[in-house]
This record gives sequence, structure tokens and C-alpha cells, in this order.
Amino acid sequence: MEITDSIKDLFEPELMEEILAVGKKKTAKEGEVIINIGQRLLFMPIVLQGTVKVSMMQPDGRELLMYYLSASEGCAMSFTCCMQEAKSEIMAIAEEDVEMWMIPVEYMDSWMHKYPSWKSFVMRTMQNRFYEMLRALDMVVFNGLDVRLANYLREKSKITGKTVLNVSHEEIANDLASSRVVISRLLKKLENDGKVLLYRNQIKLLKDF
Amino acid sequence: MEITDSIKDLFEPELMEEILAVGKKKTAKEGEVIINIGQRLLFMPIVLQGTVKVSMMQPDGRELLMYYLSASEGCAMSFTCCMQEAKSEIMAIAEEDVEMWMIPVEYMDSWMHKYPSWKSFVMRTMQNRFYEMLRALDMVVFNGLDVRLANYLREKSKITGKTVLNVSHEEIANDLASSRVVISRLLKKLENDGKVLLYRNQIKLLKDF
Repeated sequence: MEITDSIKDLFEPELMEEILAVGKKKTAKEGEVIINIGQRLLFMPIVLQGTVKVSMMQPDGRELLMYYLSASEGCAMSFTCCMQEAKSEIMAIAEEDVEMWMIPVEYMDSWMHKYPSWKSFVMRTMQNRFYEMLRALDMVVFNGLDVRLANYLREKSKITGKTVLNVSHEEIANDLASSRVVISRLLKKLENDGKVLLYRNQIKLLKDF
Repeated sequence: MEITDSIKDLFEPELMEEILAVGKKKTAKEGEVIINIGQRLLFMPIVLQGTVKVSMMQPDGRELLMYYLSASEGCAMSFTCCMQEAKSEIMAIAEEDVEMWMIPVEYMDSWMHKYPSWKSFVMRTMQNRFYEMLRALDMVVFNGLDVRLANYLREKSKITGKTVLNVSHEEIANDLASSRVVISRLLKKLENDGKVLLYRNQIKLLKDF
């Protein structure tokens, strides 16, 4: 796959040329840590293929899921970290095999002025992530999504006659008109509460559920 | 009050001079709409005194509380709107009398390069809001804050022997180690559900509660 395939429509031709000239491709295998907390960010990634899971640490050491990055998406947090020349406060893990285009951080600033499409990309990324988080918060507070999720899982178990459900977090999110982040969080809570066990694309409902 | 009192430590002296030279003071009375959805943002506000409530519209027309701005804070959303030269997607209302310093949007860009303190201010604002939202989401999902809030209100009512409680959302947030945004959201849900009535710094518990 050419890098231009997934991001060529995002940027003006002159910027695409620079991106190709100064950046480099990086791959990561499923489960691989791409960037860890405390590391210095020297490159800003744009995902070409696959999915990256971005998390931060809670003060209590618990991992806190922020969002997933898919093809043609950049990381909102790495923008702010790079721009402040700060150490990473986030952890990025390849949730499945990924290809990324890595852009050295020293270009981020000058491109903000030079290329309107870059400024738009950075600002849009920040804004979208922000809205996503906000809608997730609103949905959880207002719609009792935990209850809807539990009903959904029980119903699915009844229909299939099985306690092990073959369903991904993404599918559930689509079915419940929610986001994968929220569903993952609620499933994790069910696991913490001893109600389910979570496997890759499988959920086992325990007796207590 | 001098504008320099609340924001002088944020910016380097050269930038403070520019801010004073190109900006202007604006005041708004409690309840006044400062910026509405669809308006073009010509100025970027920094709050000097008072509190501004920032909301957006849900697709269903419901107002969605984003955050509150206090002294020395800028609006994360107005940065992205300004930088994209977009119409405002947010509504800002004076929650109490406010004084703001309004900076014409045309300076935002060049200051990002010229003044490290400005770049830091913008990026820090975005990042802080983002983390705040994230922690709020986590707290609601993991801690069953709705249950804790209900218990808290019942307990307060029992102690005082009254069904009208003199307490602000901020005080409740402090008592429950939560954020005002989340508490306001949960109280609003209780009101929607016919459990309470909300007044300024007062909450009336209804029979159903």
C-alpha cells in the first residue's frame, strides 16, 4: 500500500511532497508498545493502516483508555505533547498490526503556518476527539448505557443459547449507537465486577451476570 | 481590576504588551449570551473575572454542557474555531457577571510562532480540557457517581430536615471529588426525570426522589 492512498486527500500536493520527503514508515505488530509514558516524542504519527489504542495512566496506576486511531488519523495528544516539547503522557499500543507514517516533530510548527491543510488537520483532530469524548460522557450520563449494554448481552446470549458471545466491542458500539471507547470501558467494568470475562472478540458471561 | 492582575504571569512581557495593545475589555451580565452557535468568532476571550459556561447543541437540539471558564482561562473550542476560521459550534453564557479580555483572532496564528508562552497557553488549554473530560467520563463509568450523588442529597436532606438544599453544584463536586460539569449533568438528569427542581444554588428534592 502506498502512503498516498490513505492520506493523499488530506493535504495539499506541496505538503504531501514534504511529508513523503521528511517522514518514514513504521510498522508495529499487534500488541506492540509504540510509545510509552515518559518517552520523548520525536515523531508525530499518522496511521496508514490498522488500529492504535491510546491510553493514559490514572494517578492510581490504572490504565485509562482515551481513544483509538484508525487510517488517516493523527493523535490529538501527540500534537500537544510535541508542541510543548513535553514527554509523552500517553501510551500507544498497536491493537492490530499497524502501518504509520512518522513525521519528525520539528516540522509540526512551521507547517502550521505554511500549509492551511496542516493547520486544519491538527485543529480538526483536536476538536473531533474533544467532541467524541463529550458525546460519550453525555451518553453514559443520560442514557444509562450500562443497563442497555447488559440487556443487549443477555438478549444475545438468549438468542444464541450460548454464554460465550462472538462479538467485538466495535460491533456492540455500532449496535448500541455508542462509541467503542465507551463500550470497552463499560465491559471492563463488568469484568472488574466479576460479571464477564473478556477475550479478543469474545465475551464470556459468568454465572453472576 | 487591572487586566494584568489575572493573566500577567501567563505570558512573557512582550506578549503582554501586545495583548494590552490589540485587545479590549468586554463585560457580560449574569445570564447574558456572549457568543451563540453559528456566529463568526472575531475575538478569542480570556476570562479576567467571573465564570463563563460553554455549551454545544446536540443533534436533537438539547444543550450539552462542555465546561466552565474561570479567571485566566481561555476557551479550548474558540481556539480551534478561530484557527479554522469556522463559525462557532458553541454557545457561551455568563454564569455570573464576567470580565473578559478579547483578542482579535488574526493574532492567534502569528503569536503561536512568535511567543512560546502563547503556544504553551493554547496547547495546555486544549490538553487540560481534554483530560478533564476524560477523567469525568471515567469517573461516571467506574464510580456510579449517580448513585453517590443521590445518597449525598438524601443524607443532606435528612441531616437538615429540609427538602430544599442550599448547596451549589461546585460544593457538591468538591464533596464528591468530582467535577462541576459532571455534577451539573447528573443533576440535570435528575430534573429531567422529575426527581428534583434546580434553582440557583438551591436544589429542591421532589416527592419521587
